[in-house]
Amino acid sequence: MLADEQCQPLSGPEHKLNDSAAQVLLAQLPGWSVDDQGRLQRRFSFDNFVTALAFTNRLGEIAEAQGHHPDLELGWGYVVVNLSTHDVGGLSRNDFIVAARINSLSG
Amino acid sequence: MLADEQCQPLSGPEHKLNDSAAQVLLAQLPGWSVDDQGRLQRRFSFDNFVTALAFTNRLGEIAEAQGHHPDLELGWGYVVVNLSTHDVGGLSRNDFIVAARINSLSG
Repeated sequence: MLADEQCQPLSGPEHKLNDSAAQVLLAQLPGWSVDDQGRLQRRFSFDNFVTALAFTNRLGEIAEAQGHHPDLELGWGYVVVNLSTHDVGGLSRNDFIVAARINSLSG
Repeated sequence: MLADEQCQPLSGPEHKLNDSAAQVLLAQLPGWSVDDQGRLQRRFSFDNFVTALAFTNRLGEIAEAQGHHPDLELGWGYVVVNLSTHDVGGLSRNDFIVAARINSLSG
């Protein structure tokens, strides 16, 4: 299970996933897609601002523990999570690990 | 002082600030500008993800207390705050009040 894996230090283009490898992992991640900038992305909806912020904090604990941080959009009733790996110039396995762990949060 | 004011329930285009009124208030808000979508915007920089998230939580308390919520962008070392008032179709005094209160946080 992706959600049981730990992020590893990855640097260099050899760790960038090609499209077919990314699609195989994406199939394990309900709700996620790859956006037009090549980022792994999911939008989560909430009933208000406080619950969206609470989710952000739980998500932040995962990011901090894994040493891999998404770019977030947050407002009243929503959180959008954007993941990519700057040091590989695209998507790495770490993005999918963090996404899977975030999916575990959303139940 | 804007930062001492409380947000008021505002609805309808009569509460939308015209450009000159907005510029007068903007002059009281160091660091803020109006972006190309007409939103009041400021970028805050931090040393890491945890401090950016802590700032987001303090900012969230202001938003919740004022009943006026920004759209945020949050990631490693940064928070971008975007304010506008959907119910007036642009910027209202409430946006400037919340911005001033957020500036009080950043010291």
